Amino acid sequence: MTENENQYVRKRALSATKAEEIQAVEKKVRKSQPDKSCHRPRDSLFSWNSGFDNFTGFVNWAFLLLSIGGLRLLLENFIKYGVRVDPIQWFYIIVNGESAEFPTLILLLYHIVPVFLCLIIEKSLSVELVSSGIGLLVHIFNLLSVILVPMITIHVKEGFSLFGASTVCTVYSVLFLKLWSYIQVNMWCRTARQKSNRGTIRRQSVSLSNLQRAKETLKKHNNSADSSTESLNGGLVQYPDNLNIRDLYYFLFAPTLCYELNFPRSERIRKRFLLRRAFEVLAGTQIILAVIQQWMIPSVKNSLVPFSNMDYTLATERLLKLAIPNHLGWLIMFYILFHSWLNLVGELLHFADRNFYGDWWNANNIDVFWRTWNLPVHRWALRHLYLPMVDMGYGRNAASMVVFFFSAFFHEYMVSVPLKTYKIWAFMGMMGQLPLSFFSRFVEKRYGPRLGNIIVWSSIIIGQPLCIMMYYHDYMVIHHGTTIAQYQ
Amino acid sequence: MTENENQYVRKRALSATKAEEIQAVEKKVRKSQPDKSCHRPRDSLFSWNSGFDNFTGFVNWAFLLLSIGGLRLLLENFIKYGVRVDPIQWFYIIVNGESAEFPTLILLLYHIVPVFLCLIIEKSLSVELVSSGIGLLVHIFNLLSVILVPMITIHVKEGFSLFGASTVCTVYSVLFLKLWSYIQVNMWCRTARQKSNRGTIRRQSVSLSNLQRAKETLKKHNNSADSSTESLNGGLVQYPDNLNIRDLYYFLFAPTLCYELNFPRSERIRKRFLLRRAFEVLAGTQIILAVIQQWMIPSVKNSLVPFSNMDYTLATERLLKLAIPNHLGWLIMFYILFHSWLNLVGELLHFADRNFYGDWWNANNIDVFWRTWNLPVHRWALRHLYLPMVDMGYGRNAASMVVFFFSAFFHEYMVSVPLKTYKIWAFMGMMGQLPLSFFSRFVEKRYGPRLGNIIVWSSIIIGQPLCIMMYYHDYMVIHHGTTIAQYQ
Repeated sequence: MTENENQYVRKRALSATKAEEIQAVEKKVRKSQPDKSCHRPRDSLFSWNSGFDNFTGFVNWAFLLLSIGGLRLLLENFIKYGVRVDPIQWFYIIVNGESAEFPTLILLLYHIVPVFLCLIIEKSLSVELVSSGIGLLVHIFNLLSVILVPMITIHVKEGFSLFGASTVCTVYSVLFLKLWSYIQVNMWCRTARQKSNRGTIRRQSVSLSNLQRAKETLKKHNNSADSSTESLNGGLVQYPDNLNIRDLYYFLFAPTLCYELNFPRSERIRKRFLLRRAFEVLAGTQIILAVIQQWMIPSVKNSLVPFSNMDYTLATERLLKLAIPNHLGWLIMFYILFHSWLNLVGELLHFADRNFYGDWWNANNIDVFWRTWNLPVHRWALRHLYLPMVDMGYGRNAASMVVFFFSAFFHEYMVSVPLKTYKIWAFMGMMGQLPLSFFSRFVEKRYGPRLGNIIVWSSIIIGQPLCIMMYYHDYMVIHHGTTIAQYQ
Repeated sequence: MTENENQYVRKRALSATKAEEIQAVEKKVRKSQPDKSCHRPRDSLFSWNSGFDNFTGFVNWAFLLLSIGGLRLLLENFIKYGVRVDPIQWFYIIVNGESAEFPTLILLLYHIVPVFLCLIIEKSLSVELVSSGIGLLVHIFNLLSVILVPMITIHVKEGFSLFGASTVCTVYSVLFLKLWSYIQVNMWCRTARQKSNRGTIRRQSVSLSNLQRAKETLKKHNNSADSSTESLNGGLVQYPDNLNIRDLYYFLFAPTLCYELNFPRSERIRKRFLLRRAFEVLAGTQIILAVIQQWMIPSVKNSLVPFSNMDYTLATERLLKLAIPNHLGWLIMFYILFHSWLNLVGELLHFADRNFYGDWWNANNIDVFWRTWNLPVHRWALRHLYLPMVDMGYGRNAASMVVFFFSAFFHEYMVSVPLKTYKIWAFMGMMGQLPLSFFSRFVEKRYGPRLGNIIVWSSIIIGQPLCIMMYYHDYMVIHHGTTIAQYQ
């Protein structure tokens, strides 16, 4: 700073102080006037100069306006369509189209075959009855059968209800992932056993006896059965002691897709917690059914003709109309499946790890959303596909791609097979996540996390109903094509 | 604490430490297993035990869902009614029903009569030409004429457009409040002059010369015309120098209802600020017109028959449907009137006090809302009605009541006179604020400020359209009664 500038600044500061002084005097003089003056120089709150930024009341405003809009839509809907909610319909949905041979029930019972086959191969491998090469081959065929048997059966055989076919596909997808995990973990154990030498085993048993000693000290201090001791009862299971049908079935029912030999256990079943979760599951499914019956079915039916005729304005209006009940249904579904149902099962099975979902609602880009909304699948993909591939020497991008295609395949599988409509909208929807991921990360970096979060929510709210309408449209064209043609 | 309890606590603490130790050992042992264990005891985020409470993403969700719902309504509306927006219509609205004699224009020009009469009386009072008793009597008659002349003229004379009559009523209401303030302030000054002795006048002139000296010091330091000096140019006006037509008309056009002899002045007109406010006024009025044409008129027309037939479900649906465009229109109206328009006028007149509204959107009860949303009126009521009444010895509650009735009367006046429909819905709406005020303060105290704020918003969003529909219904029944009867 030059001397000149310095002088200038000093002069400005002096005159600013003087100005403040004058303002104070002016204020005093004005106050002393007999006209009770009530004005002073001020900016409006909306002006930038005011520096005011407390608009929290508008958050309440948004939620209130949302509720009022929702209430209005509900009333309009009841006026237009009457009461279409019918809780008894669950029963018809389950059995509707189901033939007297109960193919769904039979296909669900069939799961015993691949499960036992898998256990038998593992047993044989553990005692080196079959070579690892042959074992792997049989495992692969077994896993492929888990995917293909329901697919072919549902396609070839008549008499599956839509609900039955969906259940079968979901159950067999989960079974596939669980058996994959089971096989891989047991392989890791076998590899460790082969590599192990006396030294490492001794070290391990030392640490185990440490644990035993600590537990005994605790028991002396405190006779009551404590959580931390209970969960260690009987010590840790070692390979191959885990290879029994009881352990395998515990894993198959447990709310996780990742096998391990010693799951963390909770010491007791909290009865009130259990009752609340059970009530949530029952009430939640009824609410979803009501939303579908009263709101979605009329909207989807109305959207059919605009989509066929490619009337874009009308189709967009229908899409947005469908988006909101669909999104609400998805939110309720998320809650009852990932919170109520998985916690219910976990509580019943004393399964202590309830980390089924992260805070995806705060996700600032699509990647974070996919990493947090479904933690069982995310953890499976990381542990059993991504990391093994990276360990095998593949690049991280290649591994990510494989995980992505895998996920896209299962999305497609669980939609196309029950509908018998082999279009690729679900697969395309998943593929669409790739450019969306780039876009959302760009938005997050360029315009801040808030806008990134809005992009994530938009894709959730708009993406799904678009796919649903595509499938519904194609399903109707395929199965009732001529009837629609008459309407046009 | 007894020795026994002490021992127990120590034992528990010891066992807790031991338990932690065991957990740490257990974790270490589990990690050393070959099965790459990935589970550990955790609660779900929605469980109370997890202590998780970051749901900020849902705020974005609410605003997004609101936007999507709005977009959908917009599309539905255009599909149903086509484009009804017509910017040219402003012209027809202004002149529609206006006879060739231009009664609105004549009535607006008539304001000169009470203004000049008021000034003449004040002049006479200041030089003690008339006694204060006679002066007050003439002032009262003059003020009553300001209210009654437009009321009677509009009622008796045909040829006023709805827009013209509304403008006249608004202008004369404002004129009434401004003249009241002008008369009262001048009265204060006269009283002060009568009571004053030489001593106080000398004291005052001393502080004035102080100010003059300070200003001169500043000028020496800083040659540029500074805001604080400019606003003091010419010193402070003293009674009765203010009694001239120029000063009175400055007050009549200034964006305030409270007269004072020396308004705070801004030193320059910011051209970009001015242009932005002018654009906002033009664009905002067009948006309001568009909302009314495209959204409100069809909704109100549709609501007529349900309200007449007292079909409650349908009427509620219509009310909620009307509530949202009406509320949006009100928000835009608030912004262009209280921010854009008053700032525009203030900037043009170098009027420095732009405090036209508080942060009513954060109001936690109805009272705070009424105190903050319209500061010119609130300040007038406090300075010219409430405080004078309290000074005269009335209780605070009595003074509040009078302010309230006064306000309710003007609400009714500005609606009923232009519509020529002397129902009391606006008056009742204001009266309804009393129990609502009790209720909202109770809710705020009992359930916290957030719910209080929601009550305030609800009353804003729902209360107004209810009154509008009542008036529209009665207006139609009175003016087109037989036509409606045919529809039923």
